[in-house]
Amino acid sequence: MNDAEIKEKIYKLTEQEITSETEAELNKLLKTYPNGTIGIAQINPIAGNLEYNTKKIVKYIKHAQNIGLDLIIFPQMALTGFPLDDTTAKLHILIEENVKWLKQIAKIITKTTALVGFIEPCNNKTPEKYFNSIAVLKDGQISKIIRQSSVYNNHNFNDYKYIEPYTTKTTRTIEINGTKYAILIGDEEYSEQILKENPDIIINCSSTPAIVKEERKKMKILSNTAEKYSTPVIFANQVGAIDGISFSGSSRVFNSNGEVFACAKQFEQQLLICNPKFNLGKNYHQTYDFEKAEENTYFSLDYEADMERTYKILLQGIRDYFDKCGFRRAVLGLSGGLDSTICAVLLADALGCENVFGISMPSKITSQESKSDAEQLANNLGIHFTVAPIKDMFETTNNCLQKIFKTAEDRWDCRYEHSYTSDNIQARSRAMFLWGVSNEFASCLPIATSDKSECYMGYATINGDMSGGFAPIADINKTKLFALAKWLNKNRTVKNAIPESIIQKRPGAELAINPKTGKPLIAEDALMPYEFLDEVIWRIENRKEQYNDMINSEFLYEKNHTISKEQKIEWLDKFYRRMAGALYKKTIMPPIILVDSENSCDKRPITSSKLNFKGHSESETGAIISEL
Amino acid sequence: MNDAEIKEKIYKLTEQEITSETEAELNKLLKTYPNGTIGIAQINPIAGNLEYNTKKIVKYIKHAQNIGLDLIIFPQMALTGFPLDDTTAKLHILIEENVKWLKQIAKIITKTTALVGFIEPCNNKTPEKYFNSIAVLKDGQISKIIRQSSVYNNHNFNDYKYIEPYTTKTTRTIEINGTKYAILIGDEEYSEQILKENPDIIINCSSTPAIVKEERKKMKILSNTAEKYSTPVIFANQVGAIDGISFSGSSRVFNSNGEVFACAKQFEQQLLICNPKFNLGKNYHQTYDFEKAEENTYFSLDYEADMERTYKILLQGIRDYFDKCGFRRAVLGLSGGLDSTICAVLLADALGCENVFGISMPSKITSQESKSDAEQLANNLGIHFTVAPIKDMFETTNNCLQKIFKTAEDRWDCRYEHSYTSDNIQARSRAMFLWGVSNEFASCLPIATSDKSECYMGYATINGDMSGGFAPIADINKTKLFALAKWLNKNRTVKNAIPESIIQKRPGAELAINPKTGKPLIAEDALMPYEFLDEVIWRIENRKEQYNDMINSEFLYEKNHTISKEQKIEWLDKFYRRMAGALYKKTIMPPIILVDSENSCDKRPITSSKLNFKGHSESETGAIISEL
Repeated sequence: MNDAEIKEKIYKLTEQEITSETEAELNKLLKTYPNGTIGIAQINPIAGNLEYNTKKIVKYIKHAQNIGLDLIIFPQMALTGFPLDDTTAKLHILIEENVKWLKQIAKIITKTTALVGFIEPCNNKTPEKYFNSIAVLKDGQISKIIRQSSVYNNHNFNDYKYIEPYTTKTTRTIEINGTKYAILIGDEEYSEQILKENPDIIINCSSTPAIVKEERKKMKILSNTAEKYSTPVIFANQVGAIDGISFSGSSRVFNSNGEVFACAKQFEQQLLICNPKFNLGKNYHQTYDFEKAEENTYFSLDYEADMERTYKILLQGIRDYFDKCGFRRAVLGLSGGLDSTICAVLLADALGCENVFGISMPSKITSQESKSDAEQLANNLGIHFTVAPIKDMFETTNNCLQKIFKTAEDRWDCRYEHSYTSDNIQARSRAMFLWGVSNEFASCLPIATSDKSECYMGYATINGDMSGGFAPIADINKTKLFALAKWLNKNRTVKNAIPESIIQKRPGAELAINPKTGKPLIAEDALMPYEFLDEVIWRIENRKEQYNDMINSEFLYEKNHTISKEQKIEWLDKFYRRMAGALYKKTIMPPIILVDSENSCDKRPITSSKLNFKGHSESETGAIISEL
Repeated sequence: MNDAEIKEKIYKLTEQEITSETEAELNKLLKTYPNGTIGIAQINPIAGNLEYNTKKIVKYIKHAQNIGLDLIIFPQMALTGFPLDDTTAKLHILIEENVKWLKQIAKIITKTTALVGFIEPCNNKTPEKYFNSIAVLKDGQISKIIRQSSVYNNHNFNDYKYIEPYTTKTTRTIEINGTKYAILIGDEEYSEQILKENPDIIINCSSTPAIVKEERKKMKILSNTAEKYSTPVIFANQVGAIDGISFSGSSRVFNSNGEVFACAKQFEQQLLICNPKFNLGKNYHQTYDFEKAEENTYFSLDYEADMERTYKILLQGIRDYFDKCGFRRAVLGLSGGLDSTICAVLLADALGCENVFGISMPSKITSQESKSDAEQLANNLGIHFTVAPIKDMFETTNNCLQKIFKTAEDRWDCRYEHSYTSDNIQARSRAMFLWGVSNEFASCLPIATSDKSECYMGYATINGDMSGGFAPIADINKTKLFALAKWLNKNRTVKNAIPESIIQKRPGAELAINPKTGKPLIAEDALMPYEFLDEVIWRIENRKEQYNDMINSEFLYEKNHTISKEQKIEWLDKFYRRMAGALYKKTIMPPIILVDSENSCDKRPITSSKLNFKGHSESETGAIISEL
């Protein structure tokens, strides 16, 4: 075999199931490269579950030793999983225990050196802190510990609150079989200090979340570092989801020109074998979605480039939340609308159709089309399905409430002329059914089907459609969900599982009749066109725009439709008013999968909802003060 | 008048309503002290509501000028309110706008210098950050800005994520009428650097939350600083609640011996006038609760010393959340049990009895005593009351669910033999009524009455008793609630409003019948004795104890009762198992008032609930690994 054939053979073998035969064969083939062969263990840990993570790490180390690697690299905090957020604050047993496990892992080390991320006690600090450290396991012991020297303040996690930067200057390199490796942890940057140690290869043990901007930035920094210092850079990343935070894996090796010459799969566990010296390494992706989806400077309805990434994050998010928390089954309401439809498809794909139960819960407002669309969808997906009308629930609740309202009315003169009470009874009756199924059947979670556009607007009922054990699509806006529906119909193995009429109809909650039309109220009439709404959200999240910025620039919607300035002001005012009111609802949402948001912590304090989003001119502030 | 009489007169006047007459009189009297007279403006801001806060600040400054103060001091971030948490991340208009308002405030300054806390743009940072600054307003302009130089990492807030420490060494003192003042912001400590500037007085503009340990620590540091440097220290603190975080005020002046010689009221807005040079200053409290309640080294059921503080935090918490969010009325279920009873009393005291609606919602399990206790309580408090049985709701929901279960059972073979479905239907039916009233009547919030012991155990129903717009007592454990009930009966104007039988009966949700007794299930039988449970929580929160620490030390409960080691292990195992399962429920709780917890951020990631709380011995870890 020539070199190319050997490499191809090695990669074929790594893709097969591990057996003593494949290990023996790999061991033989890898001898072609006398030193410097490395395994990047892109693992999916469970936050806080030390035994589970240890077993996984040990399995990979044993395999690495069996095939004769010099070095195996795990992600940052591989032993504990990342993020831990505030877990360590109350349960600092985690810190002591992870050291115990680490010591035991060291004992199995014979030939291969292992870099294992863990959290190291840092005892003299109150409140208790830890170092974000990498243990160098060699010859049956912890031979060295490298500690993160600067802590990057990421808005998505609380972990850095508890991480103490290690500021003592110590060596940051290790030597294995004549090759010198420098180790960077997380978002630590390469420094002149480390350069002085003259490493041959730079390793970055990381847990970089699958947020487009973050991943893109990270890759640029690593590529630049490799190029600037003419040194290969190895990026070992975590994969999997912890609550709503996703990690794509995408571990990579950059050559000394800063070019990617090997990269791991996305959203899958993998041991990626490479040897920069001998150009051993496979590219599982030429480009990644986060690179394909070039940074948009304008809002666009063309979501095509981001569909695969979106789908994979959603699937991984559902799978990991269910698996890691010990759930297997999901129950959801099927309204025949877009949101519940997308949720049903995702759940069927993530959990298996036999584990998904869809319930159509029609009221007198529900159209015949909605009912048959829901049933058609369930049939196409092969999920369980039943129909449970809410008529009795609605009537009983309404009767009881009218009695209560009569008494209350005698005492309080603040009864609304037009209330949402009747709409909400319907949504809550449905949630009663779903939670009932969840209570009665083992390992079953009810699903909250709210989408991002509606969450922003508070257009969901507390204890109703907003309620559930998990909210898969709460970070995806409505226009993107339409695109996703079309993409799913084209790209899933079973084509066109989503009935076309679901994609065609204009969304509405079917909770109330529009007095003007005599038909169920359309959401866009109650709110504003989704195309406009989603652009407002996009501008706030991606361009940090404020009210006045938006008033003064042209929206995509305005290019396609003529709207008056007054109309635009009315919609923007409504947006800010509703967003402020929805802040509280956001704080009681079940866990959501972060897909498009950069920041998961945007909720509190609720009392800040009285902030004036429009701001004041100088003369206005002056006038208000002089009136005092 | 002699000096003592003048001082007394001054303090009498400051306690009266401000009129041009009282101002003129104060102005005349304060002339006795030719310079160095200072006002500490202990204000209650609304986070993010710049117009509201500005108006308040301007009112105080005008008053200070009218009575001829040299200096008026506002708390840290007085203009924006504190904490802002993640508000600035998405709504950075707040940063620009607060500068606009500050400039306008400066214009009204004529005679008195004002120290106003605000957030200052720090433009070169991504993600956007700000300085935590104090503006020195003098002669119609911002004459100087002092910036916080080190940022303390407090577990309760996210603010420091966005605060950039100002590391440039600049002068930290200002001079007014011959007196030199040094300014410290928040938890900044006094330094040798500042000492070199030779200040006559040290000022600390702060927002220290009303957490016993935090306040105690703060006071010690300030007292020590005053003594060590023989320099008076002025502590200006925020008062009021922002969501669940309380501030007690308790602004103070320490003399150069480190003794308190003036201190403001607790839980009230106030302008405290003082002049350390002339010993002008009044002590509104000789000791504070956080000092009275000496640090307990052991768990105790004697809560007496902490009752007043607890009551005041709860009252302020309810009042401020309702006021600041624009609510006026509350509706709650009255079960005749302790939790809903305490909530009703607090709501009546905080909102006025005319704004509280109590609904008794009996089921067939509800005892006659519970029903009459609930009614008696409502009568005693003078709140509105009605009875709304849930029989129809229960039957309808149950009928509908049984049909659904039948279908599901055909598909899924995982139906529980014993489920909590029937218990939960009852709790959720009640929540349906409360949310219905909230939807139908203006400015009305339903109340979640869960207590801390039960929240830890997940002993509350999602969309049932756990659900509501606000959860006042979710940070107070059950044994403390019993003490509070007795204290309220003794100390409220209307004595014994809480029927004695409510305090005497053993708590139970009255959702299910105990098959062993044929009577409603008692919570302690389902969980464990509250005295034991509350000590576990106390040990975790106050002593950071872990499972093994607790196994090996004696509980108060064990002093009074003989229990076997097996029993203790069973309870502790149950505690940790239930606590892990309840983690998710905690994340969807409505806002709670922090009273006893040190840390509001102890919830995520939910997936970390698989953490092994007991840990492993070295040999166990070794054995697990060697089995792989």
